[in-house]
Amino acid sequence: MKPCSTEKECEVTMEQNAQERLEKQFAFCREIDREKFIGRQTYLTGGERKENDAEHAWHMAVMTLLLSEYANEKIDVLRTISLLLIHDLVEIYAGDTYAYDEEEKQSQREREEQAADKLFGMLPEDQGKYMRDLWEEFEARETEEAKFARTMDHIQPLMLNAATDGKSWVEHGVHLHQIMKRNEQTAEGSASLWEYAKENFIQPNLEKGRILPD
Amino acid sequence: MKPCSTEKECEVTMEQNAQERLEKQFAFCREIDREKFIGRQTYLTGGERKENDAEHAWHMAVMTLLLSEYANEKIDVLRTISLLLIHDLVEIYAGDTYAYDEEEKQSQREREEQAADKLFGMLPEDQGKYMRDLWEEFEARETEEAKFARTMDHIQPLMLNAATDGKSWVEHGVHLHQIMKRNEQTAEGSASLWEYAKENFIQPNLEKGRILPD
Repeated sequence: MKPCSTEKECEVTMEQNAQERLEKQFAFCREIDREKFIGRQTYLTGGERKENDAEHAWHMAVMTLLLSEYANEKIDVLRTISLLLIHDLVEIYAGDTYAYDEEEKQSQREREEQAADKLFGMLPEDQGKYMRDLWEEFEARETEEAKFARTMDHIQPLMLNAATDGKSWVEHGVHLHQIMKRNEQTAEGSASLWEYAKENFIQPNLEKGRILPD
Repeated sequence: MKPCSTEKECEVTMEQNAQERLEKQFAFCREIDREKFIGRQTYLTGGERKENDAEHAWHMAVMTLLLSEYANEKIDVLRTISLLLIHDLVEIYAGDTYAYDEEEKQSQREREEQAADKLFGMLPEDQGKYMRDLWEEFEARETEEAKFARTMDHIQPLMLNAATDGKSWVEHGVHLHQIMKRNEQTAEGSASLWEYAKENFIQPNLEKGRILPD
């Protein structure tokens, strides 16, 4: 915020501050367009191409509108959707880390912290903090909203992997214990959705050999 | 809902109904994956490929989190985001109608009505109605939330077109009057965002000849 002394000067300053705020907001909105180029390992229906982060976030947000009734505790739907919409933004600078790449996962937090500073630093201070807090909340997995968002983040790719005959699991030779470890906390957001996912997405693909037994 | 008479029978029936509800919800969640294949005419940053409906919806939802302060009237952010997340779903069956294709636009409403019946009919009745109501609200453009959602729906592609040196406008030979007609009501959701868009996205591209003068 620029300082001012006379009334006229303050008016001009306020207008400049407002203009600056809007410029920053649009610069950020333009920058996040890049999330559409961050690839994931999940194949989309038909198996012709893989999903990107923006598509993934949209899908989970709609799923939350419909599935929030299965949360273990009552959740604030707007907050949950906000977490889901923005939680992968840091990957614009830090890249996507594949769920089963243990080496990459070690440097993940540091790379993502730096990305968060850079990206959320583009926004006006209050909104930068708001976005950063949402991201930290998702990462910390402590609130009911963050727990449910994590459940969505794990169940949506299980659903798509199952719908594409386990294509991504087969390509990566994924074992059951890897999936179970990754999903250790998935039931914390919704026990019933995790039960459903085990029975309908994991078990049939284990039986068909698309997920490797332990 | 299946009927029942004895207590035991009712328990079994309730469980079946719950299972059926979840099956329907996941069938819908799987089906909407197809939105990621519905192409739009807007080029993404870098101009290498065009946007799809899911990416578009995600982008506008995040923009709403940041720009709702510019709404002409106070809006319910969750409702606005819900409208934006689902308003293009009917295009899974009805296809995208380009903003400046007058012939296609004539049959658009009918095609989209049929698509809404089919798609939202996959959900449990209460949620099918909920989705249908959201879609109708967006289409009717009467509530403050629908007006702001429309503002986002028009400003987001203007922003991207400007960021890609007007590539889509140039390819289609778009005239200023077409853009202005399309945006007749954009100020209804946010006068200040429309002002910003005119000054920063439209005017400079008119001056550079990327938008054709009238």
